[in-house]
Amino acid sequence: MSGQASDKPVLRIRIDFPDRPSLGPGKIRLLEEIEAAGSIAAAARGMGMSYRRAWLLVDELNSMFAGPLVATQLGGARGGGAVVTPAGHQVIAHYRRVETEAGRATADLLAGLDQAEPE
Amino acid sequence: MSGQASDKPVLRIRIDFPDRPSLGPGKIRLLEEIEAAGSIAAAARGMGMSYRRAWLLVDELNSMFAGPLVATQLGGARGGGAVVTPAGHQVIAHYRRVETEAGRATADLLAGLDQAEPE
Repeated sequence: MSGQASDKPVLRIRIDFPDRPSLGPGKIRLLEEIEAAGSIAAAARGMGMSYRRAWLLVDELNSMFAGPLVATQLGGARGGGAVVTPAGHQVIAHYRRVETEAGRATADLLAGLDQAEPE
Repeated sequence: MSGQASDKPVLRIRIDFPDRPSLGPGKIRLLEEIEAAGSIAAAARGMGMSYRRAWLLVDELNSMFAGPLVATQLGGARGGGAVVTPAGHQVIAHYRRVETEAGRATADLLAGLDQAEPE
């Protein structure tokens, strides 16, 4: 779940809430994969995650904010499809913005840490 | 491993390197617990972690930077004691500084995310 490769240290973030489960790179990537794949099962496969675990994470995500982040369609023509809701898009964008701002604010510090490499 | 309690969302960080294992809250807390407890076994107990897992994490930490972050003393009067080296103190301080800067840079954004609470 470390995202794209980089030749420099990359800051990953997790947001801990006082009253809810955490929001970290795994859940955000799952949302993005659901968006791309159109179903929870396909997203889980793409991430090498069990369907059950993906479903539990979606259930958790859907209880964390004012409305659900993923809407599922049981049966029907597309059988078992899932879409990311507007609230879900907002959460993804918000998280990625926090990540970008945090990375920007600490880029120089991170470069300094990287220089302490093994000999 | 979520650290102190808070009534607001808290940013946790993990640093992914291109060529080494990641540095996240678990490893940093382990270093801090070793510093406080004076041994890997006591630190592991304090974190509810197996001694084996703690030892593997220390081994990983000791290979990540120019020098070891934890020095162990096998046997002797204090039998099995461990201390955090100056390099280890630098890594802890550096990590906490990255965390602080990242948190400062994103405090307003985080507050905004928290407002999207379940109804």
